[in-house]
Amino acid sequence: MKSYRKELWFNVPSRRAFINITPQVEACVRESGVKEGLVLVNAMHITASVFINDDEPGLHQDFERWLEKLAPHEPVSQYRHNDTGEDNADAHLKRQVMGREVVVAITNGKLDFGPWEQIFYGEFDGRRPKRVLVKIIGE
Amino acid sequence: MKSYRKELWFNVPSRRAFINITPQVEACVRESGVKEGLVLVNAMHITASVFINDDEPGLHQDFERWLEKLAPHEPVSQYRHNDTGEDNADAHLKRQVMGREVVVAITNGKLDFGPWEQIFYGEFDGRRPKRVLVKIIGE
Amino acid sequence: MKSYRKELWFNVPSRRAFINITPQVEACVRESGVKEGLVLVNAMHITASVFINDDEPGLHQDFERWLEKLAPHEPVSQYRHNDTGEDNADAHLKRQVMGREVVVAITNGKLDFGPWEQIFYGEFDGRRPKRVLVKIIGE
Repeated sequence: MKSYRKELWFNVPSRRAFINITPQVEACVRESGVKEGLVLVNAMHITASVFINDDEPGLHQDFERWLEKLAPHEPVSQYRHNDTGEDNADAHLKRQVMGREVVVAITNGKLDFGPWEQIFYGEFDGRRPKRVLVKIIGE
Repeated sequence: MKSYRKELWFNVPSRRAFINITPQVEACVRESGVKEGLVLVNAMHITASVFINDDEPGLHQDFERWLEKLAPHEPVSQYRHNDTGEDNADAHLKRQVMGREVVVAITNGKLDFGPWEQIFYGEFDGRRPKRVLVKIIGE
Repeated sequence: MKSYRKELWFNVPSRRAFINITPQVEACVRESGVKEGLVLVNAMHITASVFINDDEPGLHQDFERWLEKLAPHEPVSQYRHNDTGEDNADAHLKRQVMGREVVVAITNGKLDFGPWEQIFYGEFDGRRPKRVLVKIIGE
């Protein structure tokens, strides 16, 4: 069994953003030399997500508006977590809707994807360096 | 390490449905010959889900009504994704709540499940052929 | 390839609670002897979650209030699942928001975590014995 590990770093200038990280994950799969296996891609921070959906800017606006409706940032005083001096309680909630991680099959040395699947880093509390972990096991 | 791959195809006649796919996944596990390992089951389309919950029709009605409340289909004009000519933005959102994939342990050649766990395909934009990927690794 | 399996049991005296199970999962990783691999941690019951977020009591209050807003327990008659004699339909819905499982990388024999990641058991219908499965594969 082979294993491979890499950290991807992001420093998003805004509070929230969606970034397509499929090319970086594909590069990891190639570098790993794994032909058949699984790749785990997870946010290492608890106010960010890794998820799979469509690379379409209109949809990303819909996600942004929808997540703000489900778990609004303002007023920050509505959240007990923010009593600690933070203002990011909403980011912890949004990340639960979008998920922490994805597990993707590797087949014949490639991400085994349907026609529109793309991997995104979802940032909900940016403006500082944060990491995504890529871990691959297989043969 | 053994690996196994199979696509399951669905063509749901309605826009939305929940289909119990546990027997198909069990057949894959048997066919793979893997006794100890992991099985990844994921929707290959970004307007569908694979999730684990109860096989109880009343609960499936509750899911349907609840998802419509969280991310209503109508009016389709409320979503920027639908400006592209699609009418399925809500399906992309519903799939985030229900999830893309499940990872299930294989122990002694069987799905290592609690008493009520069943695997479902959640379709949110049907009326066309769509796929689920089953990938198994182990020994 | 090595594999390892353990069940963790919980009997939460209240209907809902969040319990940090990171130490138990760390003990499993040590016991497994796996240095490079993946650990799957999943609720074996469909009214409970395993998720990764912050060990901060204010945030847990926020989760509790937020999940009650998204999928209220009362009135129990609003859910068709409860026509079966159950009163836990909301617990099935809450568990979808929080997720069934996490997959965590094992690197150098340890959980490969970011600075604040902690694993929680999320109980949404307690007052009876329920289980979490820990399955490890790797080398």
